[in-house]
Amino acid sequence: MAQKPSIPKGTRDFNPIEVAKRNYIFDTIKAQFQHFGFQPIETPSFENSETLMGKYGDEGDRLIFKILNSGDFLRDFNENLIKSIQTALVNLRKSIDEVDNDEFDFDGFRSNFLKEFPIALRSITNIKFDERLINLNTLSEDIVFRIYNIVLKSNVLREKLYYDENLKFPELTNIIFADFYFQLGNKYVGNYITEKALRYDLTVPFARYVVQHQNEIDFPFKRYQMQPVWRADRPQKGRFREFYQCDADVVGSQSLWQEVEFVQLYDAVFSALKLEGVTIKINNRKILSGIAEVIGAQDKLIDFTVALDKLDKIGEEKVKEEMLSKGISKEGIEKLQPLFELQGDFSEQIEALKAILSVSEEGKKGIEELEFINTAISELKLQTANLQLDVTLARGLNYYTGAIFEVSAPEGVKMGSIGGGGRYDDLTGIFGLKDVSGVGISFGLDRIYLVLEELNLFPETISESIKVLCINFGEAEALTCLKAIKALRAHGINAELYPDAAKMKKQMNYANKRAVPYVVLVGESEMSSNTFTLKNMTNGEQQQLSLEDLITTLQ
Amino acid sequence: MAQKPSIPKGTRDFNPIEVAKRNYIFDTIKAQFQHFGFQPIETPSFENSETLMGKYGDEGDRLIFKILNSGDFLRDFNENLIKSIQTALVNLRKSIDEVDNDEFDFDGFRSNFLKEFPIALRSITNIKFDERLINLNTLSEDIVFRIYNIVLKSNVLREKLYYDENLKFPELTNIIFADFYFQLGNKYVGNYITEKALRYDLTVPFARYVVQHQNEIDFPFKRYQMQPVWRADRPQKGRFREFYQCDADVVGSQSLWQEVEFVQLYDAVFSALKLEGVTIKINNRKILSGIAEVIGAQDKLIDFTVALDKLDKIGEEKVKEEMLSKGISKEGIEKLQPLFELQGDFSEQIEALKAILSVSEEGKKGIEELEFINTAISELKLQTANLQLDVTLARGLNYYTGAIFEVSAPEGVKMGSIGGGGRYDDLTGIFGLKDVSGVGISFGLDRIYLVLEELNLFPETISESIKVLCINFGEAEALTCLKAIKALRAHGINAELYPDAAKMKKQMNYANKRAVPYVVLVGESEMSSNTFTLKNMTNGEQQQLSLEDLITTLQ
Repeated sequence: MAQKPSIPKGTRDFNPIEVAKRNYIFDTIKAQFQHFGFQPIETPSFENSETLMGKYGDEGDRLIFKILNSGDFLRDFNENLIKSIQTALVNLRKSIDEVDNDEFDFDGFRSNFLKEFPIALRSITNIKFDERLINLNTLSEDIVFRIYNIVLKSNVLREKLYYDENLKFPELTNIIFADFYFQLGNKYVGNYITEKALRYDLTVPFARYVVQHQNEIDFPFKRYQMQPVWRADRPQKGRFREFYQCDADVVGSQSLWQEVEFVQLYDAVFSALKLEGVTIKINNRKILSGIAEVIGAQDKLIDFTVALDKLDKIGEEKVKEEMLSKGISKEGIEKLQPLFELQGDFSEQIEALKAILSVSEEGKKGIEELEFINTAISELKLQTANLQLDVTLARGLNYYTGAIFEVSAPEGVKMGSIGGGGRYDDLTGIFGLKDVSGVGISFGLDRIYLVLEELNLFPETISESIKVLCINFGEAEALTCLKAIKALRAHGINAELYPDAAKMKKQMNYANKRAVPYVVLVGESEMSSNTFTLKNMTNGEQQQLSLEDLITTLQ
Repeated sequence: MAQKPSIPKGTRDFNPIEVAKRNYIFDTIKAQFQHFGFQPIETPSFENSETLMGKYGDEGDRLIFKILNSGDFLRDFNENLIKSIQTALVNLRKSIDEVDNDEFDFDGFRSNFLKEFPIALRSITNIKFDERLINLNTLSEDIVFRIYNIVLKSNVLREKLYYDENLKFPELTNIIFADFYFQLGNKYVGNYITEKALRYDLTVPFARYVVQHQNEIDFPFKRYQMQPVWRADRPQKGRFREFYQCDADVVGSQSLWQEVEFVQLYDAVFSALKLEGVTIKINNRKILSGIAEVIGAQDKLIDFTVALDKLDKIGEEKVKEEMLSKGISKEGIEKLQPLFELQGDFSEQIEALKAILSVSEEGKKGIEELEFINTAISELKLQTANLQLDVTLARGLNYYTGAIFEVSAPEGVKMGSIGGGGRYDDLTGIFGLKDVSGVGISFGLDRIYLVLEELNLFPETISESIKVLCINFGEAEALTCLKAIKALRAHGINAELYPDAAKMKKQMNYANKRAVPYVVLVGESEMSSNTFTLKNMTNGEQQQLSLEDLITTLQ
């Protein structure tokens, strides 16, 4: 291979320091997940296509990476298709023979064909039409339509059909085959050649897991999951085709204590990461529905929230203009005035919302939920984060039914949200298990990484791979070193021997490049005195130590 | 969705206990990797197809999972193919017009076509033939051959070609298209619709990584990598389509101390896992080559080692028969007699080998290497593993050039190898970086898991997700509990609140099912006395404690 190897766009190699930093974040999140009683599960990287397709909207379907079936999928498909077309032509010939005149009864042929063809297809042994993937009725309809259009409308070929005794029709078969392939094949081939797809998020596989294993699970089930997901999105700065998601969810509990716990969990994780001053924004779908109800825009909930969401960016007047242009009445918008003037702390904002929402039962329920959470958090206190009500927060409105969360980085750091979540009343309904409420949050690993990097919050020792390198002066010295190294490792100290008795300068260079804090030198004098010379690479100081003291010093 | 959801065959869901057990193994291996100075890297789950294809033999290529290109790949391909066939037919028609007689000069047409067609293809804007994936010369050769066979040999169509002024040739195009698709299309379509593939092992991506990042790496580079790989193998007991590999390798050092380190690393990992008494089998490719040389079977090295490898299973006589049948001479086989009678410890076997290999330079080199390793290990001593010479060991003979390792479970446990590795002198040559020696080992996670399970070696506390569950008696009590829980978590104790004020029995049931060792009860009396009742779920004992004592007791 002449050209320099590369990796697919949108993917990344991680070098040792990057892995160490990423693992620091993972491990910190994981420790808090466990303190909060969440349990880990893992699901396969690829799921059956039917599990994923149709769960993320058309755009999502398009972004799912499909895996090619193994084996000679395309030849199998082609052979089966040719065989089925030949069967169709034999049937056609029989029909023509039966009517025995020029007025060919296409409708009769068609209805007979549609009845018989799927049966014929299924009866062909070694045929591989998988009916979970291919709708044989639609396929039959398409083929008979092709036969009509191509064969019966073509004079030359029609004659051929009448007079060719051989019934193999190689050219006819080919023409229909080609036409089929070109005009219709995509949808069948697409289904036929792939039946597995890479995980697109962790939520749908989790819902599938819960339904599939419902009899083994003790509800409420608190699970966390940290695994990569894949999206065929156009790669750009900060957007990758492979990235990790870190999710914690509870299913099977409608208790609002879960929301309280998730606010505390966010606080615990970001405090443990020393990322102080993050803002946990909270809203409630019921508040948004209530406001829409009050202003007579129940049917325009999405338009309304999309406009409201822009308040920070475009200001009050523009938001009102947008609402007006979406058909929300002037009177309705006037009722929103207190919303634009919301200020003060959580409780004060709640009071203002109460005034607006006094006539909406759903709105009042939303307020009640927010108050419960706020009161509990005020009592429990957060370590370093702030809880903030944000009525403009509308992420995930398509599926969230209660609380909506979003976390933003500390003031001064330009970064989108570094976490988010909410409650969805019917998580597992898509897989047939009704009325299981779920609530969960996720952490945006890549963005948290960038924030920690920007604020210089990664621990300094994170780039340290080994604590000590033993310089190699020859075979006997190396063996002495390896004995000491064995003892050091048994005490949890990361240590290694330079593998060759190379020049001192080269070995010291290597130690410097790897940022090793200490080197050990063992020459003849150390061997005879049973000692080790320890050199501190930061200040250059040297000490001559017994093995015991060496261990103590490095521990 | 009516049917119960499932996952693709050969893949697995892991429940919390399985994840905990797997992580116990991962974490133990990882800790030792780090003590030995190995640094982690991670590579993308999918690589460019060209990085992986052709690296694992034909069988391997077949087992690589390919990822479908996103977008409407098949329609693009079909449109481009039709367009190229039409171009070819226009060219053909021009050639026929030029010669202006019935004696069509096919050879002239062909050579002109092969010259012009690729240029024509490249000049079609919006065409998508990717020359990294499709060899246009071969494609052109195939198409011109099809034109000759189908068009020029078919009278009807030939006439059509001569007399149809329109030059669109829809039927001709279709026929060639269909034929192409059916007979040749697979190889082009297969290349066209996929250009990414899931990682098949960690070694090839590592070699790719080293070459791609060679300027950022300080050699010798000691890396470890623990990531899933995917193989489209027929699933069976213990063989999965998605599984983890755990590899440690050094590149850029020919020092035999690396081999010594790897023997120690195996010993350290299995000792840390409390899996005592594993056997680390070692051999050397040079020994096998030397023996083959001595018996005059250099050209039959594979046949020879395949037969020798069966010694344990089929016995001496059958091995000799097999060698004879593969064309190894009777005299040669007689020279092997000392090999069949090898016994004693490492050093005694080495002495016997020396006698056999005295005339082979390569064999003597192999002995020297083995002796170096054995001497060092005898000095350094292993904690719980045994190092054993096994001249029948021939795994990875296609790529290993020096040491060969294999680890087998302690006696009495029926399990294939639980680890293996070796030295390969030219790891990165496939990507153009010559003469970089590598040596590495890997751990078989799934088998180690089964062995630990069979010998009951997983720590007992591994299934404990939380240490304490607080029973929920109502809002005020719950809030009091959450305050205590917050303090417990800050001391590293995993704790949670039952989310609803459900019946006591239901809550205790949940605690039992989750195997929680302690529950905390806070009712009115506890609230007024500022205490917590701690119940030990194993023996039923109860204590009334202050928060401080609660923390101390649970820590």
